[in-house]
Order: sequence, then structure tokens, then C-alpha cells
Amino acid sequence: MRQPAHGGNLAWAAALAGCPPDAILDFSASISPLGPPNSAIAAIKSQLGNLKHYPDPNYSELRLALSHFHQLPPEWILPGNGSAELLTLVGRELAQLAATILITPAFGDYYRTLAAYNANVLECFLIGSKQRMLDAELKALLSIQHSKLGNTDCGLLLNNPHNPTGKIFSRDSILPYLEQFALVVVDEAFMDFVPPNDEQSLIPVVQEYANLVILRSLTKFYSLPGLRLGYAIAHPDCLTKWQLWRDPWPVNTLAAAAAIAALQDTEFQQQTWAWLPPARNQLFQGLAEIPGLQPQVSAANFLLVESQGSTLQLQQQLLKHHQILIRDCLSFKELGDRFFRVAVREESDNQRLLTALNSVLSGE
Amino acid sequence: MRQPAHGGNLAWAAALAGCPPDAILDFSASISPLGPPNSAIAAIKSQLGNLKHYPDPNYSELRLALSHFHQLPPEWILPGNGSAELLTLVGRELAQLAATILITPAFGDYYRTLAAYNANVLECFLIGSKQRMLDAELKALLSIQHSKLGNTDCGLLLNNPHNPTGKIFSRDSILPYLEQFALVVVDEAFMDFVPPNDEQSLIPVVQEYANLVILRSLTKFYSLPGLRLGYAIAHPDCLTKWQLWRDPWPVNTLAAAAAIAALQDTEFQQQTWAWLPPARNQLFQGLAEIPGLQPQVSAANFLLVESQGSTLQLQQQLLKHHQILIRDCLSFKELGDRFFRVAVREESDNQRLLTALNSVLSGE
Repeated sequence: MRQPAHGGNLAWAAALAGCPPDAILDFSASISPLGPPNSAIAAIKSQLGNLKHYPDPNYSELRLALSHFHQLPPEWILPGNGSAELLTLVGRELAQLAATILITPAFGDYYRTLAAYNANVLECFLIGSKQRMLDAELKALLSIQHSKLGNTDCGLLLNNPHNPTGKIFSRDSILPYLEQFALVVVDEAFMDFVPPNDEQSLIPVVQEYANLVILRSLTKFYSLPGLRLGYAIAHPDCLTKWQLWRDPWPVNTLAAAAAIAALQDTEFQQQTWAWLPPARNQLFQGLAEIPGLQPQVSAANFLLVESQGSTLQLQQQLLKHHQILIRDCLSFKELGDRFFRVAVREESDNQRLLTALNSVLSGE
Repeated sequence: MRQPAHGGNLAWAAALAGCPPDAILDFSASISPLGPPNSAIAAIKSQLGNLKHYPDPNYSELRLALSHFHQLPPEWILPGNGSAELLTLVGRELAQLAATILITPAFGDYYRTLAAYNANVLECFLIGSKQRMLDAELKALLSIQHSKLGNTDCGLLLNNPHNPTGKIFSRDSILPYLEQFALVVVDEAFMDFVPPNDEQSLIPVVQEYANLVILRSLTKFYSLPGLRLGYAIAHPDCLTKWQLWRDPWPVNTLAAAAAIAALQDTEFQQQTWAWLPPARNQLFQGLAEIPGLQPQVSAANFLLVESQGSTLQLQQQLLKHHQILIRDCLSFKELGDRFFRVAVREESDNQRLLTALNSVLSGE
């Protein structure tokens, strides 16, 4: 059985572990363990009677909810069928430029969308940076790449916090690139995990830059990857153009209703910010104490871990003996078999992972 | 308040009628009045606990259900976020040809998707044909267009049954175009309304033609436009290429589950085929008896009606005095203000429409 290209395909893991998919403890998908919020499920149920109508093609209510949430005019916000759908529109936009600098290691779908429109991609490798070094390092790397390109119109695609390293770029460190690049796309799929006082979203400055596109997702924070809901934040002219590049009803009625409810669920948001820092710290400390493993500091709800041994072997043993799935990093070509990624889960689950890792790696 | 570009936007109609959207009797969207099937709603409810997982990017179960339903190998079937999403991929494909012949009047989104990729469109006007004349007429029209184009690679985009006329092309009448055109796209969004003995789908021959794409929808027959579910049937090489043009999870978990249940709901399918012919006949006869109105024979679940008076005025009066919404045809530029379209509904609703039309048109 071939391993699926993307984490979270539990059928493959269950077959290897010899158990039903439900029995797998999944650390491979970077999804909050707290959700989905009850409010979102209730909203879905309340809309079942409305499926016989088309969704509002303007998604006025959803845009209004997002507008309140981000303190932005609704016309700066475009909902999509997961941020992955919007990423495809981004790919078409970036392909019109002379080149796009992609910060790597990068989410596999970035390559897919850039290739779909034959974009000219220049990779800019960032792994290994320590958090305090990061801003300076990005600056140096981008200067080198940019000077090679001369005065041509180029794009920059990065995510913040960065997946799979969990590193966060400060808002101030990104601002200069908005002057340098014709288009800057920041995928903030994991930004809502950063507590409000620490977050580095570019949303507060988006109205000052017509060349900035921000992608956001409700998938991870609200634990709704099956529902497909994300949104783009960018200049209205850009979003109006994109509307003509895709079908009129990309978001289904149930996803739109769940999103509105989730955005208003401040209790769920507070719970998440209260859960994550101590749980991540517990997992980080536990991993750091295991000989042969080196977790990296992360601002997101996952940890990248460097391993002295083969990660694929480790993944298989964890599945077979403990029904636990970790994310190997083979799809991140710069990382290969010496890294894996784990989601932060609730403390008892994190402890189960730590115990299993200790057991497998000590050869017990 | 501006009228929405697409039928089915009840908010606009409700404001004009001065009632809540639920109180509008909607003849504007060509959706079955019998659905959604209970089986589909039950399937959605059963999957609410699975929203925390990504959908299977291969949609294996859904493809298998479609494969059984159409007696085709699963790799010939590609599910999409409504057939509208797949239409966008079709637009990109057609734009690579020298020209695309579009049978008109045509669904507005055909123009959008062809324009999105700067396709060269040649319109081929078909309205006014009587059903028995239709096949010959299409042949003549296409011969003229095709001879103008010489030996260049051209595409053909039509829908069958045709929206908004309700005319149906015989399978045999389309087959010759598969020899003539580099790519033939047949949107069969309304074909499942035609009882099995009469239907003219090209699905039975699709495996013989690598240049044939068939689009199908679950929106209309199963009354699920809010859910977004359609599929393309075409050569696996074509579908594999399209997969790389779009995001990996276009169909959400709930839509996939509802589709599987609906496809297996033979009782619902039988009910629909038992309801439509007599209900359509009742509505046709009633319309034909109203002075100034001329309905056209239809194989689908809607009727195009020619009117001696202004359709926009009629639409407004029906809304204001009877809370009934009909579909004006202004978005079909060849038709304008002298045509409207009505969905076939259950007999009591059809009678309500007929009574209201009689009342408005007789000036009572």
C-alpha cells in the first residue's frame, strides 16, 4: 500500500497498524485537538433545511462576520473552499511575474499551484535557523536572491508561522519586502494559534499595500479540515479579478454557517490560547529529553523534530506497536528522513506519544 | 436593490415582495421540489464527527459509488465542488484550442469560464428550433461554423438537455462532432431528469472518445445546490492533468457523504421520474392556455416561456402580489425581456403559479 502524499490519510496508517482508522492517535495533521467547536456543529445542523437553495454568491453574511472579526471592510475579504482553493488563484497571479521566491522547506501544495501555471520558482532555503537569527537570515537570503533578479517584477511566497518549522517572522521583518517585491503572499494558516499579544499578522497593515495577499484558514484552529473553509485578504481590485477566475459558489452553505459561528465563539478561542503554550512546552521538554531527538522552538501548534535515526522506521514502529501516527517529512525535500513533525495535542495524548517514543527508541 | 445575476437569490426577491425569503414560492431555480432526499441529510449528519479529518484526496468511496452508478471505471470520474468548479477547468482546457463553438443561449457561467482563460468563443444561436428540427438544425449550424474555421483544432461546448430551452439532443446527433472537434464538452446537468428509457447521455460511449468531457451535477436532481457537488467524466489522462490545476480537497466531507447516499437512493430516483412528466405536462398545458404565453416543449425540469408582454414587469407583479419568483432571461442576451423560465414544481404549486399568471395577465 502506497503512502499518501499528504499527512492525515488515516486509511493508510490504519492498515499498517492493523486497527480501525478511529483507533489511530493522529499527530500527523496539524489540527487543534479541542475542536470542532460545538457552536460550529450546531450552525451546520441549523442550515440542513437550506441546502435546497444556492449559497449567496456574495457570501454577504460570512464576509460581514469576517469583517467584524478582523476590523476590515468586507470587500477586502474573499472566502474560499479552503485556503487551498485560494492558493491556486495566488499561483495564477504569481505566474504572471518574472519569478517567485519561495521560502523552503515549503508545503507541497505551494509547488503544485506554482507549477499549475508554469511560474518561475526560486527556492530560498531557511531550515536550521534559530528563532533569534531568523529575521536577519531571511533578510540576507532574500537580498541575495533579489539582487540576482535585478529590477524585474518578482513575487514572494512564505508562510507565517512557517510550516513545518513553526518559526514566526516578525511583522516588521516582512514589511520591507512589500517595497521590494511586486507581490507578497503570506499564508497565515497557523497565525490564529499565536495569542493576540504575540501575533505577527500583516492584516493590520493590509490596507496600506495593494501588493499584499494574506491567506487564512479556519481548518486548523477550529479543527474543521473536512469542511473546507479559508479566506484571502487583499486589495478589492485583486479579489474582484479572482472572482472571475473561479466558479460563483465556492463555499457551501454548511461551511459558511460554521465559519460565522466559529468566528463568534470567543470562548473556544480563549480555550485554545490557554491550552497551547503549556501543552507545547510539555511536548517540547519531553522530546528534548529523549536521546537522539531535537525539537525546534515553535510558535504554532506543531513541532519539527530532528532525529538521529530514520524517521520512516520510527513512524512504522510507532504505528505497529502504539497505533500512533507521526508526520514524516519526505514531502519536504530539504528535510528527508531525519526529520518528523508532530501536532501538539492534549497533555495525556502528548504523554502517550512521549512514552511510545521512549519505548521505541530505547528498543524496549 | 440591484437584481442578482443568477436566479435563486431569494434575498432580493423577498425584499421586493415584502416577505421573508422562506415565504417566496421559487420557480426561478431549476431545482427538484422533491428533495433533498432524507438519505442524503442522514448521511450528512452521520459525518459531522468526521469533520476534524481531511477528506480523502482520492475520494475513493465517492468515486466507487459513481463508478457503480454509471458502470464506468473510477479513474474516468472526477468529483468537484459543484459542476461549476469543473467548468472552470474545462474553460482552461478549451482556451488552449483555436476556438470554441458555444451553443447559445447559454448559461452565463460558460461565458465567465471561457473569458477567464481568454478563450476564443464563436457563438452558435439555436433558439426557436422545434424539437423535431433540432438535430438537423444543429448539424447545419455547426457545419457552417466549422467550415469557417478550416482545419484548426476547435472545441464544442453545449448542454444537453439544453438550458434554458429544455430541448434534448439525441446521442446519435452529437456523435459526429466527436470526429470533427478536438474537444467536445457536454454539460449534462439536467440529464438525470430524463427517465432511463429516454435519456441521451454520452456516458455509455465515453470510453471510446479521448476528446469527450461530460459534466454532471447532483445539485438539481437531488435538490442540493447549497452543498456543491458535481463530477466530470472523461479520459483519465485529462482528469489527472486537471487534478494538478486545482487544490487537493475540492469536495467537503459532508457533500461526499450526501452524494454517496443520494446515488444509492433508487426510491428517490423513481419518485422523481414518476413526478416529472405529469407535473410538467400540467404546467405546460396551463401555460399554453394563458393568452400571450407560449411555453416550449422541454425534456428537463423547467419550461422556457415566450411572452408577448414584458417579462420584467410580470416578474415584479408576481412577486409583489403573489410572492412568486420566476426567472427572467436577461442574462441570456439572445432572449431578453420576452422570455421567462419556470421550474416544474409539485402540482399544487404549479397551479398556484398558473392562477397567479392568469390573474396578473388578465389585469385582475
